[in-house]
Amino acid sequence: MVLDPFSSEKPTLIVRKLQPDNRETPLHFIKTDIIHHEFFYRRNHFSYPYLPTSNYWLPVNGVVVHPRLFSLEEIFHMPSKTVKVLLECAGNKRRFFKPKVFGEQWGKGAMSQGYWKGVTLRHLLELTGLKHGAKEVLIEGYDFGKTPSIEKPVSFARSLPIEKALHPDTLIAYQFNDQPISFKHGYPLRLIVPQWYAMASVKWIRQITVLDDVFKGPFQSFDYVYYPDKKTDAGAFPVTVVNVNSSIQKPLNREILNQGRQLIRGIAWTGTGQITKVEISTDNGSSWSQAKLAAQNESTSYAWRTWSYEWTPHEKGEYTILVKASDSFHRIQPKIPFWNRKGYGFNAYDQVTVKIE
Amino acid sequence: MVLDPFSSEKPTLIVRKLQPDNRETPLHFIKTDIIHHEFFYRRNHFSYPYLPTSNYWLPVNGVVVHPRLFSLEEIFHMPSKTVKVLLECAGNKRRFFKPKVFGEQWGKGAMSQGYWKGVTLRHLLELTGLKHGAKEVLIEGYDFGKTPSIEKPVSFARSLPIEKALHPDTLIAYQFNDQPISFKHGYPLRLIVPQWYAMASVKWIRQITVLDDVFKGPFQSFDYVYYPDKKTDAGAFPVTVVNVNSSIQKPLNREILNQGRQLIRGIAWTGTGQITKVEISTDNGSSWSQAKLAAQNESTSYAWRTWSYEWTPHEKGEYTILVKASDSFHRIQPKIPFWNRKGYGFNAYDQVTVKIE
Repeated sequence: MVLDPFSSEKPTLIVRKLQPDNRETPLHFIKTDIIHHEFFYRRNHFSYPYLPTSNYWLPVNGVVVHPRLFSLEEIFHMPSKTVKVLLECAGNKRRFFKPKVFGEQWGKGAMSQGYWKGVTLRHLLELTGLKHGAKEVLIEGYDFGKTPSIEKPVSFARSLPIEKALHPDTLIAYQFNDQPISFKHGYPLRLIVPQWYAMASVKWIRQITVLDDVFKGPFQSFDYVYYPDKKTDAGAFPVTVVNVNSSIQKPLNREILNQGRQLIRGIAWTGTGQITKVEISTDNGSSWSQAKLAAQNESTSYAWRTWSYEWTPHEKGEYTILVKASDSFHRIQPKIPFWNRKGYGFNAYDQVTVKIE
Repeated sequence: MVLDPFSSEKPTLIVRKLQPDNRETPLHFIKTDIIHHEFFYRRNHFSYPYLPTSNYWLPVNGVVVHPRLFSLEEIFHMPSKTVKVLLECAGNKRRFFKPKVFGEQWGKGAMSQGYWKGVTLRHLLELTGLKHGAKEVLIEGYDFGKTPSIEKPVSFARSLPIEKALHPDTLIAYQFNDQPISFKHGYPLRLIVPQWYAMASVKWIRQITVLDDVFKGPFQSFDYVYYPDKKTDAGAFPVTVVNVNSSIQKPLNREILNQGRQLIRGIAWTGTGQITKVEISTDNGSSWSQAKLAAQNESTSYAWRTWSYEWTPHEKGEYTILVKASDSFHRIQPKIPFWNRKGYGFNAYDQVTVKIE
């Protein structure tokens, strides 16, 4: 008999779509701060690309003084930086919007994190130099295909304003958790843009172009735009910085619990500064208590912070548990999410309802 | 470079809970009628059991004429029967109840099917004989543990009324899809009860006992009972036969589709008789059309029937697609589900809402 009763304890990614491959991290079952690449969420607009099988070069051109092709070897020998960065899909938690919106119905797991190692984009741009008038840096991936908004196939490509491109922690990464970045997550080179939603962190970089104008590609002028109005484009503005946010990992929503002491635990994160406070309500918002925040190891954090709260319900019944986080820029999660037509940036209080039996 | 762009097309089970192991079939991404055991949903009340590593015997005792121990060898050499049977968790679709209920929040995938081969329970009971007064047959599994309703650990055990135990297609199965049943799905012997919700199909059979009384175990007097009332047990009755039901597999809920011809496809099933009709509405119930049913190969079917419907939406916008199935006993899916406190037997119209862009 082949018995392997414990292999069952391993979770898997949750498939939202197979073509293109879109899966979320089983965040409720993750107990670590560093996500193995197998459990890293996948968000693709297109099929996985065919990469050049040899002679990979990274072109950096446009309004630069010295257009250059960098080999991987060259890049690996440049001064490197390793940063713990959370990547969160702008559509994370989309399924919780009311009224409901269209698109991949992400739950709470369209986010993952780990250690990214690479060279700073700033360093490459120092090597090429910037011409007067450099305004944006366009990063194009090898992935391409059809998108509803445009007739011809397009590459996945996004621009960064020059200040963000030159930020000392914006990386051209080649390692994730001490290994080459896995194919599905951007091998051999992936842009890592801390503090922005992850559509900015372009995978499988094909080329980098410095622009003296504003790029208007579909992934920043059609998708990844907040449209507050259901019908018109009035008030639209681009998706950039990650909102202050938190999620309950345990207990599960609609879980039946025994009486006695319960550990409520989860994570909190923000794109501006640091998480400074996480508050819990076990009575659907009537009263709030502070959760215990895990120690912050790094001086600058682009990662989530775990928190926990001990709770001893004294009576049987139903309880709605809420959580809200605050950051060092005095941002606080709202009770009501900012509804927008494409469903980006959901960050209302997280909540689960449990029953004590 | 290791490129395996196509491995991404394989779905995985969707974890609902890790301890005990509860995962659902990614039904939306399944295109076959026969589910590989890797994609078979898992519903456990307890940890996986430790089985006897040798000398497996199946005791059949109680109010029988000749109590017996059957070896696996003996069972394998008895006349066998192979039946295509759908197993559906009684809590399948629980997450769609409104008001929401507690327990595992199953979507549409707590169901799977394939070919089960075994000896009929009837045959074993013919070999032992039944004493006068035999009323129920109790089947006990090797899995056990604590359950909220009872102080001491209990085995997973369920009884069948004698008529259902003697039904010619109630099997003591040892193969699934031409292979020994996999450990996680009941190796070496699993009871298969066609047409009943799958709590009846006890895994890892430890023993069979014929009773002259009514069994009152927690998995049939506490769980797997319909409680129509939110607070009291008034009107409670046991969960048995599978309701007539259907699910849309394609398109996905909240999917954004291009204009042009769409194939809507899915499955329909029932615990009584055969599926005779599947109706589709693409205008949220104002008008209905008949879907095309796949040919029925077997004369008796305990499996789902696939259906499809070609639809050409002529205008952009949002569409709510509904489906309802009817069976040969004139059962038809209701518009409003039968709400019950523990959330069993959901079978209201299935629905998805899509946007044509």
